[in-house]
Amino acid sequence: MPPTTGIDALRGMSPRDLRARIRRGEWDRPTAGLALGFAQANLVVLTREIAYDFLVFCQRNPKPCPLIEVTDPGNPEPVGAAPGADLRTDLPRYRVYRRGRVEAEETEITRYWRDDLVAFLLGCSFTFEGAMERAGLPVRHLEDGRNVPMYVTSIQCRPAGALHGPMVVSMRPLPESAVPRAVLVTGRYPRAHGAPVHVGDPAAIGVRDLAHPQFGDPPRIKPGEVPVFWGCGVTPQAVAMAATVDLMITHAPGHMFLTDLLDEDLAAG
Amino acid sequence: MPPTTGIDALRGMSPRDLRARIRRGEWDRPTAGLALGFAQANLVVLTREIAYDFLVFCQRNPKPCPLIEVTDPGNPEPVGAAPGADLRTDLPRYRVYRRGRVEAEETEITRYWRDDLVAFLLGCSFTFEGAMERAGLPVRHLEDGRNVPMYVTSIQCRPAGALHGPMVVSMRPLPESAVPRAVLVTGRYPRAHGAPVHVGDPAAIGVRDLAHPQFGDPPRIKPGEVPVFWGCGVTPQAVAMAATVDLMITHAPGHMFLTDLLDEDLAAG
Repeated sequence: MPPTTGIDALRGMSPRDLRARIRRGEWDRPTAGLALGFAQANLVVLTREIAYDFLVFCQRNPKPCPLIEVTDPGNPEPVGAAPGADLRTDLPRYRVYRRGRVEAEETEITRYWRDDLVAFLLGCSFTFEGAMERAGLPVRHLEDGRNVPMYVTSIQCRPAGALHGPMVVSMRPLPESAVPRAVLVTGRYPRAHGAPVHVGDPAAIGVRDLAHPQFGDPPRIKPGEVPVFWGCGVTPQAVAMAATVDLMITHAPGHMFLTDLLDEDLAAG
Repeated sequence: MPPTTGIDALRGMSPRDLRARIRRGEWDRPTAGLALGFAQANLVVLTREIAYDFLVFCQRNPKPCPLIEVTDPGNPEPVGAAPGADLRTDLPRYRVYRRGRVEAEETEITRYWRDDLVAFLLGCSFTFEGAMERAGLPVRHLEDGRNVPMYVTSIQCRPAGALHGPMVVSMRPLPESAVPRAVLVTGRYPRAHGAPVHVGDPAAIGVRDLAHPQFGDPPRIKPGEVPVFWGCGVTPQAVAMAATVDLMITHAPGHMFLTDLLDEDLAAG
């Protein structure tokens, strides 16, 4: 197989062409910065048996779990979000959870696929981060070339059937004066987590130590900045752990699915 | 039972108190104008067997079917939208569909209830009509004291499992100059049908004769006005007919469920 190419060679490519490259094994790294203007998505794969509960879970917890696509059982093609794509091969990296623990990390999941699996795509924060940048708002982890810090909170999701667990949030520090604009800009995208779920004191949502996120990289917070928290698409993985779900396959953090949807398709309207 | 009282006696009452009156049989008429500021909802009741398909159908067709609550199977209490309410008794009027045909109209559905029934609440146009009025936009059918005209279109909903059918739309005529404001005002409420799905030529969406709506009352359109069409919560009833669903129980048109949610809870953010 050809070697993985640098990200510069991929800029400006369409989501379809990028998926083809990923499918051929030519890109197995994070997808931040690719296919700008197009929505990227979190992946969650579950058995049909538990898929009903997950659909209800997403309905009850739209901030962390904004559902943008559900495949038909056994069909790995997301016909609404990316016709012709194959969710078994078209993400750069996957995580396989068994009974609530990470069992494997894979670059394709064909051998795990079954006729009773259903794939869910959830909107992703890349959509609103692009909007923040266009609005002149700082996005610190992008400035620093790091992953966004993510925290398990004391906010319990509304349970659904067998599924329960804490909400996971991502955090972006902002100057206090920038908070209203950040709320308005991100609130335009309810299908990509929408407006923040919390602004200010981390302890109020059970986050003890900003310097030690449960996922992603530690943040750099400047004097006068306030932490701002958004619902995060890693929440289903926390639910897999809390509810010890038999089998859940997800994207690996930062290794998202590139849809053909425009970021603007995830805007309110 | 006490006689049905006039609507004037009910103005200013809370949704909870109104539901109690409806439950006692003191109100079996349309709910327009009641509990202003609170969201009213379309009701759809299905068996657990077909409920999965309906959840996916709503995800794939959010304009006509904006889902705001799903009950646990067998539980008639919508714990998120109206804790303590009972969806079997708290609507003024119901329709029972068997194999795609209206079998009965009822003022309560206790005798139909089963342990495998799931209730769905969908956002309702009353939410955005209130916003239109506050924005100074004309809402013709309200001015005329009539029901909104509704049309079966040639727009096919994205199917989901056994469920398929045409999108039903509601229509409100507006001066051309008022169309942008109407789009912006209603677009704020994606969980209450959001922005229009079509503006202008009815034939483009398969509506042949505005004077003969399939549901509701004929419209009065003034010179210089353009017809504006929104996704409509009657769509599931068209689906019940098209897909000959074994059993579907809905509200009777205009006889909605009064939730404790604020209209603003259905706004984007």
